[in-house]
Amino acid sequence: MTKALIYGTGSIGSVYGYILHKAGVDVTAICRSNYEAVSKNGITIHSALWGDVHYRPHVARSVEESSSHCPFDFILVCTKAFGGRETALALQQVVSPDTAIVVAQNGIEVEKEYHQLFPQNTIISGVVWLPASPVEPGVVKMGAMERIEMGTYPAHVGSQVKVEQLASLWTLGGGTPIVHQDIQAKRWEKLAVNCAFNPMGALSRCDGANLLLSSEMADETVMGVLREVSSVAAAVGYEPSERFVEENMACHRASKQTGGKEQSMLVDVKAGRPLEVEAIFGNTVRIAKEHGVQVPRLEMLFCLAQALNFSIQRPPGRWKPLMS
Amino acid sequence: MTKALIYGTGSIGSVYGYILHKAGVDVTAICRSNYEAVSKNGITIHSALWGDVHYRPHVARSVEESSSHCPFDFILVCTKAFGGRETALALQQVVSPDTAIVVAQNGIEVEKEYHQLFPQNTIISGVVWLPASPVEPGVVKMGAMERIEMGTYPAHVGSQVKVEQLASLWTLGGGTPIVHQDIQAKRWEKLAVNCAFNPMGALSRCDGANLLLSSEMADETVMGVLREVSSVAAAVGYEPSERFVEENMACHRASKQTGGKEQSMLVDVKAGRPLEVEAIFGNTVRIAKEHGVQVPRLEMLFCLAQALNFSIQRPPGRWKPLMS
Repeated sequence: MTKALIYGTGSIGSVYGYILHKAGVDVTAICRSNYEAVSKNGITIHSALWGDVHYRPHVARSVEESSSHCPFDFILVCTKAFGGRETALALQQVVSPDTAIVVAQNGIEVEKEYHQLFPQNTIISGVVWLPASPVEPGVVKMGAMERIEMGTYPAHVGSQVKVEQLASLWTLGGGTPIVHQDIQAKRWEKLAVNCAFNPMGALSRCDGANLLLSSEMADETVMGVLREVSSVAAAVGYEPSERFVEENMACHRASKQTGGKEQSMLVDVKAGRPLEVEAIFGNTVRIAKEHGVQVPRLEMLFCLAQALNFSIQRPPGRWKPLMS
Repeated sequence: MTKALIYGTGSIGSVYGYILHKAGVDVTAICRSNYEAVSKNGITIHSALWGDVHYRPHVARSVEESSSHCPFDFILVCTKAFGGRETALALQQVVSPDTAIVVAQNGIEVEKEYHQLFPQNTIISGVVWLPASPVEPGVVKMGAMERIEMGTYPAHVGSQVKVEQLASLWTLGGGTPIVHQDIQAKRWEKLAVNCAFNPMGALSRCDGANLLLSSEMADETVMGVLREVSSVAAAVGYEPSERFVEENMACHRASKQTGGKEQSMLVDVKAGRPLEVEAIFGNTVRIAKEHGVQVPRLEMLFCLAQALNFSIQRPPGRWKPLMS
């Protein structure tokens, strides 16, 4: 029987665990804050796609505890993208020679640490399109859309069979996988959207629709960010098409009539949670610098998002009280 | 006896009324939200500069009510910079041929509407350096610093005698005036600071010190904004010196040790008040466009500040509820 470990059982991890469970996979979920709830009640998903569904994974408090269910064919990393190195190190004890690690996180080059630590394993990069939010511990709400784009990292390294196997399971479980020979092109496209709507929404407290409604210049400013990311991608050999930029904007522009949704970073701000700033912007700006690409809008958003993160976390010893 | 009208008796207007009152001027204050309190108790200022001081101006609810104290030698416009045209029109009934209008507001070209409506009157442009905040209606707190830079608008139009007279009264009242032949150079310098620290602080919820402490790139990003404003100023013949940029940054950098102060726009955000976005950015970006100066950082901040303003005000009929 195929075995999978879900590392990080938030909204995304909960849904992915369900898809694999439905495909007949033996699923173990590492649950931290929601361990008690999931142990007791399993996981419930209220979805427009499948209706209300429920499943019971094996539940573990930690990687160590999950090791009783080894060996895993797939490990899905579904946490927010903080400290890839630490996560990779923690997973060492449950990675077998045949384990494929699926990095289902935002950002660019978030797979790198896993590939460096497990050079013989297949690393599958997943680009997640799944708006979902927590309702209470062990209960998740999602809409009618689920799509995962996947491919090996780096492209053409690792087992294509593993990717095809995961995609088949995904389809079997009611999900929508798209396999790419070089997933990085897709990752850059998702990154462009994340770089624009996520921080701009979080900083201004606007969902995507209201951001575009807020002033005449909003549309062109967002487009300016998308195009800066495109120019960085182009510098490393990926050229997100203008069509993609236009299609994505068309979707957000349409929401000016229907109402929009709050991006995850705005949800995090409202909940006082740390923001995924470094994963989204850090590598992007670094790559831009290495290739001499000018990205003043990205730098401004990176700087502001870090400052917002700083004011949310107020790290002791670094945050300075106001002058009295 | 010299007569002055204070239009907008918030923190700045309250302090300026005190300075003129102490110089022997007959002061009338237009008080809207604080009419009852000021009528009953006058105005109290807790200041590090003069200690605790108190005075009683004539109090009026409106321009019309203030007209019983006409004619005014000086009218000081001390409101936030919203709708200059409306304010100018409202003041028509109390502007005499000999009245000088002092525009003590943030932004660039905020004096223009007054000059257009009162082309024969002397328009005095005031660049305000006065950190002060309201404590309760009729009570203001300020520190040890007060400085106003002043000159006619446009330069060399209107009566230099009026400017000198105002400066003399200011000194007599314990204030610190600096007269400039062309005040616009100073206005551009103040604008540069407003364009950087005000919106960046409001968006990230950081005072100046914590903004600079938040990441390694914060300093250079702020400098990038200051330099963009400098390049717009240079395009219209004003070249804020690099020394000014450095001096101002030095002051903010020093606050990383002592703790900073919250900029007025952050105070407004926290109080849920509308933000002075248009006055600070609107004309600046328009002038940049007219002269072909690239200002991607300013455009981003303008866009974000407008979006933040939009989410604070949620104007009915324009703000769209979230998709359910």
